[in-house]
Amino acid sequence: MALTAAIVAVGSEMLGLGREDTNGPHITERLLDVGVSTLSRVVVADDRRTLVSVLRAALDTADVVVVTGGLGPTCDDLTREATAQALDRGLRRDPAALDTLRQRFAHYGRTMAAVNEQQADVIEGAILLPNPIGTAPGQYLDLGAERSLFLLPGPPHEMKGLLESDVLPALRERAGGTVIARRQLRVAATGESDVEQIAGPIYSRVDNPRTTILSAAGDVELDFVATDISLEAAQDRADALAREVESALGARVYSDDGRRLHEVVAGLLAEQGRTLALAESCTGGLIAGRLTAVPGASTFLDRGFVTYSNASKAQELAIDPALIERHGAVSEEVARAMANGARRVAQTDVGIGVTGIAGPDGGTPEKPVGLVYIALAGLGGDIVRRCRFVGERERVRVQAVQVALELLRRALLGLPPL
Amino acid sequence: MALTAAIVAVGSEMLGLGREDTNGPHITERLLDVGVSTLSRVVVADDRRTLVSVLRAALDTADVVVVTGGLGPTCDDLTREATAQALDRGLRRDPAALDTLRQRFAHYGRTMAAVNEQQADVIEGAILLPNPIGTAPGQYLDLGAERSLFLLPGPPHEMKGLLESDVLPALRERAGGTVIARRQLRVAATGESDVEQIAGPIYSRVDNPRTTILSAAGDVELDFVATDISLEAAQDRADALAREVESALGARVYSDDGRRLHEVVAGLLAEQGRTLALAESCTGGLIAGRLTAVPGASTFLDRGFVTYSNASKAQELAIDPALIERHGAVSEEVARAMANGARRVAQTDVGIGVTGIAGPDGGTPEKPVGLVYIALAGLGGDIVRRCRFVGERERVRVQAVQVALELLRRALLGLPPL
Repeated sequence: MALTAAIVAVGSEMLGLGREDTNGPHITERLLDVGVSTLSRVVVADDRRTLVSVLRAALDTADVVVVTGGLGPTCDDLTREATAQALDRGLRRDPAALDTLRQRFAHYGRTMAAVNEQQADVIEGAILLPNPIGTAPGQYLDLGAERSLFLLPGPPHEMKGLLESDVLPALRERAGGTVIARRQLRVAATGESDVEQIAGPIYSRVDNPRTTILSAAGDVELDFVATDISLEAAQDRADALAREVESALGARVYSDDGRRLHEVVAGLLAEQGRTLALAESCTGGLIAGRLTAVPGASTFLDRGFVTYSNASKAQELAIDPALIERHGAVSEEVARAMANGARRVAQTDVGIGVTGIAGPDGGTPEKPVGLVYIALAGLGGDIVRRCRFVGERERVRVQAVQVALELLRRALLGLPPL
Repeated sequence: MALTAAIVAVGSEMLGLGREDTNGPHITERLLDVGVSTLSRVVVADDRRTLVSVLRAALDTADVVVVTGGLGPTCDDLTREATAQALDRGLRRDPAALDTLRQRFAHYGRTMAAVNEQQADVIEGAILLPNPIGTAPGQYLDLGAERSLFLLPGPPHEMKGLLESDVLPALRERAGGTVIARRQLRVAATGESDVEQIAGPIYSRVDNPRTTILSAAGDVELDFVATDISLEAAQDRADALAREVESALGARVYSDDGRRLHEVVAGLLAEQGRTLALAESCTGGLIAGRLTAVPGASTFLDRGFVTYSNASKAQELAIDPALIERHGAVSEEVARAMANGARRVAQTDVGIGVTGIAGPDGGTPEKPVGLVYIALAGLGGDIVRRCRFVGERERVRVQAVQVALELLRRALLGLPPL
């Protein structure tokens, strides 16, 4: 029987405008890795009555309760007191913890204000978890019958430290040898429903691995999460299903190791020693921005042009102004001329050209918003794709970036073009 | 006395890998607008025992409980039953709701499976909230003593519909006429602690408006949220404090209306009819990508160069290779030559040049990772800034983008440079 968890993040600031708790999702994910599934995740204000009530519900329903935040020195830091109250246990001030606190202050040449002493308060029966990078230690309480409670500091780097050093090792042992392994497949420039239609009949037959499908503009991610008694067995399970789905999806799969499309393409360019030049109009530098996010991009990216004006297309890429006049800046002919122009000017192996109407304005019945031409020159090919993307300006642009990168990936691998 | 809320999002899928509940944060924000502050926000699995326990804690602590999800037709949809149990009330099948359901299915030419009938189950004493765009209606329960409970469907567009049409109007009335207004100030290329040092002594004196400070790479946001008995009074309060803080921060404030730095700069360029050319090395197209995110960017952005190789800097921007040889590609001299070269080649009013070491490799003791030179040519000036950014590759790049845009903003407004 797998263990269950409740995660409680304490702090009014996370219930304000534009704020989020990032600790809870991180803990959910790491707990899954040791076979513990989360039943509830709460963000709660620095309000004693609410905190006690939320903690009681957590203790009432889950095997493992992980609380983050509210362990600092101020009067808003109620986690220790509220947890003791929810458990009907006392708090004692730990002399050794108090000493450690005092030493830490002395080390930084500061005197410790009295308010800090509460950080040495320990719940009856709890073990302190030393926090090497902050003043507030964590606490661990074995509640018997496979149940346990952890109090962790709120700052993410401190929380992560104690999660890895104390919480996960304890739970890994307790989860009775159930181990989780994952595999991820990624597909670009294909709709989520198209991926699901091919992959769904395969992965929906099995419960282990569990499969999740997530999509963003021009990108679909398939996650396979398998459990078994050993890491090898779990990884084999995840890999076997991933391989089956991958063979059905074929060349559409660009990554099985978590790398994103621009990383895969950058890796191929570097590996093959190919050089690239870009000519971007509607994507306005986004392809260059993605590829240069990869360290060492200078080995393959020679240069990029953001040719927004017609004059710049003519001057920088040596495109005949009459061609633009005749077909319009958004046309198959101009996209092709951009890709070839960039490649020729920069003397690179490959050139990419993108021109389109990202919107919201500038569309016509013949050339509507979302129409984008994407061209690739070099590597033995001269390809142009006419795409009609749906969505807002930024979504149109990101989809165009994905198609351009996918065209390039396929050309580099000698796969049939999109 | 302001009302308090507990928000409960029901659905195991939101506790899986990479998934998040987006309904809760949205509801928190909209409730704040009618003067209701959230005490706890929970994501809970489709598990009856956990759900009942979480709902009891919510009902026990908050005036308003808003539950989303779990109202569909499957056996995983437990919200109706669990809520009835948490309240110790019965469920009755509503004949009118059942009719509406049957009609909806008939309208789409489908027969209704028996499992769908549970969507017509209503908690004793609850009022159904018709859902014009989905099958599952919402429910509203007046619990007396200013306390109330809402069940809303999980799909965000259905939830938002009922939130606006039913939940907020009911609460706005109940919150006793308290109204919320906001004002936001944004500052670029200045550290959060620097902003806090100037603004903190002003805003920390007052409780209303409440002030929140948020920061991202090269960008700081100050939010002022005021409550009062009328929108005008609340807006006056928020504006008065914002003005006081703004006059202390001076020219550092680039926006008081929520617009981001690239939107402000794009607006100024368009307004003033100025044209721009970019020469980016370490930012690799990110400045162009940001500015072209603004619709109509073609009116001011003539072109951009991503000059990654030394050859491209020499060829495209007519920089003397000897200058690069002498000072290195990352130098004040080359940054200045890039800005001037881009401006001259494109014949624009302004040129921007950026060259630096984004890392993680390529640093030396003299030119460490994070060193970036940012130059602006034109508008009567010829400025270079030497910056030393801290953080990972992408953070270094984004900070450089912010400084470049801020230099440009100040030049366009005739303000003293950074």
